[in-house]
Amino acid sequence: MNKERLQKVLKEMERQNLGQLIISDPISIFYLTGKRIDPGERMLALYLRAGEEPKLFVNELFPVSEDPGLERIFFKDVEDPVELLSRHVREGETLGVDKNWPARFLLRLMELKKGCRFTVSDAVERVRMRKDPAEISSMRESSRINSQAVKKLWELIPKGYTEKKMGRMLLEIYEDLGADGFSFEPIIAYGENAADPHHVPGDFTPKEGDSIVIDIGCVKDSYCSDITRTVFYKKASEEARKVYNIVLEANRRAIEAVKPGARFCDIDEAARSCIERAGYGKYFTHRTGHSIGMEVHELGDVSVANGERLEPGMIFSIEPGIYLPGRLGVRIEDLVVVTDDGCEVLTTCEKDLTIIE
Amino acid sequence: MNKERLQKVLKEMERQNLGQLIISDPISIFYLTGKRIDPGERMLALYLRAGEEPKLFVNELFPVSEDPGLERIFFKDVEDPVELLSRHVREGETLGVDKNWPARFLLRLMELKKGCRFTVSDAVERVRMRKDPAEISSMRESSRINSQAVKKLWELIPKGYTEKKMGRMLLEIYEDLGADGFSFEPIIAYGENAADPHHVPGDFTPKEGDSIVIDIGCVKDSYCSDITRTVFYKKASEEARKVYNIVLEANRRAIEAVKPGARFCDIDEAARSCIERAGYGKYFTHRTGHSIGMEVHELGDVSVANGERLEPGMIFSIEPGIYLPGRLGVRIEDLVVVTDDGCEVLTTCEKDLTIIE
Repeated sequence: MNKERLQKVLKEMERQNLGQLIISDPISIFYLTGKRIDPGERMLALYLRAGEEPKLFVNELFPVSEDPGLERIFFKDVEDPVELLSRHVREGETLGVDKNWPARFLLRLMELKKGCRFTVSDAVERVRMRKDPAEISSMRESSRINSQAVKKLWELIPKGYTEKKMGRMLLEIYEDLGADGFSFEPIIAYGENAADPHHVPGDFTPKEGDSIVIDIGCVKDSYCSDITRTVFYKKASEEARKVYNIVLEANRRAIEAVKPGARFCDIDEAARSCIERAGYGKYFTHRTGHSIGMEVHELGDVSVANGERLEPGMIFSIEPGIYLPGRLGVRIEDLVVVTDDGCEVLTTCEKDLTIIE
Repeated sequence: MNKERLQKVLKEMERQNLGQLIISDPISIFYLTGKRIDPGERMLALYLRAGEEPKLFVNELFPVSEDPGLERIFFKDVEDPVELLSRHVREGETLGVDKNWPARFLLRLMELKKGCRFTVSDAVERVRMRKDPAEISSMRESSRINSQAVKKLWELIPKGYTEKKMGRMLLEIYEDLGADGFSFEPIIAYGENAADPHHVPGDFTPKEGDSIVIDIGCVKDSYCSDITRTVFYKKASEEARKVYNIVLEANRRAIEAVKPGARFCDIDEAARSCIERAGYGKYFTHRTGHSIGMEVHELGDVSVANGERLEPGMIFSIEPGIYLPGRLGVRIEDLVVVTDDGCEVLTTCEKDLTIIE
């Protein structure tokens, strides 16, 4: 049990007027207990209540080591785990649950606890937004590996492999660099494919003049990285150079705006206004970024809709892009962590306009 | 809209005394509408009610083509999609929802529809259990490719690659054979690793005398395959041969027991009793199989707990195994489809004891 993180969650529950909380997300449970359990279809729940020892409800199939700060409550496949859980839930009080708790558990518990008011709570996600020093260190290492991986992919471009093959090679590159795998399916897009921000790698090979968007991420020691770099194959047109430099400027302006007290929407605005001023506003079709940590997308969008203020320890992506359908796409993405007086860029790979010969 | 499948679901709803149903699983929605939408965090819901045209609630970000049998109701990111959905739900009636519908949608809808009784319904999963001829044909093709892939991996064993590397090679093999990707992360286990039914491939290389368990599956045209074969590297001990032949006999006995009217638990019993009689009962530590289709694990366990009767069109795995910790493991898995008078084995790869030289 990580007591410091637990205290933060209990405090957040208090702020939300929540006396009790059921956490079911295995990643949030790992974050708090250090125990990694993938329950599949089975129920897994961590029950929190101020002043009580946390209780972990887990199928006996999953070995969970003893822990002085945590009560383990095992059940068998033939038992009704929700009924067991319900015996520990305080009747008549509001109960928070994870946003994704499946209906099959929730409806059963509601049937058994008719006197409770049930509500979705993001208490753990809100605590997870502010990374502690150990987490920042893991995020830094994950991004360091990822930055190296991009450059190894650049070296392979002249070999003329398909986008798909590049994706497979990337898995070997990550392994050689000591990463544990992908944090998401890689996007590798040549030429006009680069104009689709969510392109799925296909049987395409690079052609002279292509913009090449590489958007990849690895997991290292449970923490995710995410980078995008755009390079050009053999040559870059006037238009490509112009678009590249606008996106680069937007990326830099947004990074300069990151500091405690700024709002997520201010960061989005810093990037967006830059692209709009250059006349490409309608070609920047997505939010500027997203929070990231043990999951590649966490609570905290860098978007016009998010007025929340930045605090030290928050980590998110800054990834403006311009997409000209049928022609080219450029996106430049870095991860940043908010510091006491600004930010640190975790992504170490250079980002000046690069032509791959 | 697939009208035939829709009629079957409406009939199943009637059997379950369910006047209305919300389907949120993207695979079930694809099954019924032919429209493949991955909504991520956003709400996606297909609302069914006898005598009414089905209504699909979908974010406008996802282009959904027109369809005469389906009403499309689009919403924007700034709207409350659950409120929109609630306007179409009949007040005062029981409403079925998918077992995995997330709490964030369910609790909001319950707040808006206090007069409804909410219940989890498996109506679509139950219809999906009985595959139609087009589905059986796709499942056959997926298993044909998968059977070829296993043999290609056998050819690579003498190269001495690590388990991990074999997993990566498999992705290329599938691609060459025309599959669309993995249906699950491959299990490739050498020697004593084979004694762990859920082994994750690591940096191990094959040694003389190893049992080698290969448990892999691909997706082809939306349908999954799943096969396990166990072979021996260069030689097989007396014990290994004995164990292999017991598992093979259990696999064959279970397949012989498959016919309409038999129960899932009878199939489990046919395999289990065979292994128990040979004195290895306690080393067969899992159920005999699982249903499979567009998902690799579907409703319908082949286990002692499932008394449901088999019907033509049901497809499931038969995968008995014996695991001797620290020594070896053997598992032999085929997919079968129930026919009018028995079954057809979809897996085409041979399964007599094989030594890889």
